[in-house]
Amino acid sequence: MLSLMAKLYEVIVLMFLSLISKITTTSSNTSTNVSIIDGNSYQLSWRLAVETNNIRMWRTVPAQCIRYVENYMLWGQYARDLDVVIEQINDYVRDLAMVELIDGMDAWILDIDDTCISNLAYYKGKRYGGDPFDPAGFKAWVQRGVCPAILPVLRLFEELVEGGFKVILLTGREEEALGAATMENLRNQGFVGYERLIMRGPEFKGQSAVIFKSEMRRRLTEEGYRIRGNVGDQWSDLTGDYVGDRTFKLPNPMYFVP
Amino acid sequence: MLSLMAKLYEVIVLMFLSLISKITTTSSNTSTNVSIIDGNSYQLSWRLAVETNNIRMWRTVPAQCIRYVENYMLWGQYARDLDVVIEQINDYVRDLAMVELIDGMDAWILDIDDTCISNLAYYKGKRYGGDPFDPAGFKAWVQRGVCPAILPVLRLFEELVEGGFKVILLTGREEEALGAATMENLRNQGFVGYERLIMRGPEFKGQSAVIFKSEMRRRLTEEGYRIRGNVGDQWSDLTGDYVGDRTFKLPNPMYFVP
Repeated sequence: MLSLMAKLYEVIVLMFLSLISKITTTSSNTSTNVSIIDGNSYQLSWRLAVETNNIRMWRTVPAQCIRYVENYMLWGQYARDLDVVIEQINDYVRDLAMVELIDGMDAWILDIDDTCISNLAYYKGKRYGGDPFDPAGFKAWVQRGVCPAILPVLRLFEELVEGGFKVILLTGREEEALGAATMENLRNQGFVGYERLIMRGPEFKGQSAVIFKSEMRRRLTEEGYRIRGNVGDQWSDLTGDYVGDRTFKLPNPMYFVP
Repeated sequence: MLSLMAKLYEVIVLMFLSLISKITTTSSNTSTNVSIIDGNSYQLSWRLAVETNNIRMWRTVPAQCIRYVENYMLWGQYARDLDVVIEQINDYVRDLAMVELIDGMDAWILDIDDTCISNLAYYKGKRYGGDPFDPAGFKAWVQRGVCPAILPVLRLFEELVEGGFKVILLTGREEEALGAATMENLRNQGFVGYERLIMRGPEFKGQSAVIFKSEMRRRLTEEGYRIRGNVGDQWSDLTGDYVGDRTFKLPNPMYFVP
């Protein structure tokens, strides 16, 4: 009888321990999830402020946001955010198609880095923007010409070209050093059939993207192009002069280009 | 001995039940949290696209986002998002203060609705934007003059006034019908000491906010004001002409003003 009780006692203790461990595990999952809501609320606010151009001239992702940005980029929310913007672009393109494209001067402007092709693999090695910009490292990366296409943007590109729009790729990349690699990278990723690739010439070295891109858009406008849409991951693609009839901001919480 | 074992058994069963109920509660919290992360990813993308001006001309919050917008507005994330923008404004104002304000022509433009004072209590009755805009209902609400101050913006307002900036309140509200109620509402909420309150006159009736506000900012600029900052909850406050040196977009996922 006593040995039975001892056995029963042992069983009970084991069950208890297993239950307590279960509770602890569950609780810790819970607090992880709560931290995604509550603990990450600052991270959410930070990302929103970046995406709305309220936070400017930032040099690195703040320490408390690095892990969050990694999860954002890798675990689906970035892809979903991108898809919702592309849906909006498609709706707008559909409306535009109602207007007949007569003279071949209806243009779209697309940025290149993290708009047409992705630098995510490079930024993985830079803690998703947690490390400061490394001009030599980034140049070496670009020269490899291995940036993968951002697929929803590639599909948009193809639809615009097929739809009769002139697609102009406008990038802050320096023409002299990066022209060949950029052209090859675009080609190997399927960006074929664009009207023009405009890169930064030596006269704009050191200028902000807003200044350089505004001037390029001014020249395009003077040539007679009507900029129907303008797509970029940076506000410096979409602000300044001659920004176009509509601008679309793609998500990018990893870096800021002035 | 047997009665002792029976008692022990009873105690153990009770402890078990209590533990199991604890686990169940914890698990159900966990799945709620997971649904906030995964189930709301479209809602997050929609809100981001609205706040970045990628989705325009929308008339109501989509059905699948109504509950999410309610939670966003009431459960803290709206307040936190607002705080992060106000922090950015404060940083910028601190930088501006380095420059001496000489001639009293350094101005800030603040929108009124859901920038200085809140319509959240009204929109609660409109399913947080799930119902279409109701001009008569909104007019009646405004005429009551009971919109509460958005406190972080009130503090910003006070600091700007004390700091020597000319604060100009620029609103699409119609002067004739809503002037008296608006002035009284601003006063009873502590917005005292502004340079000018500019409301929509009859000549701008039916015009978009972008057109009306651009024209008002043009006139202010011609009077010699330097628009140092411009704060609003709508992109129509912050786009068009003479937008100012910096613009700050406050969150508002409840409605869109063209």
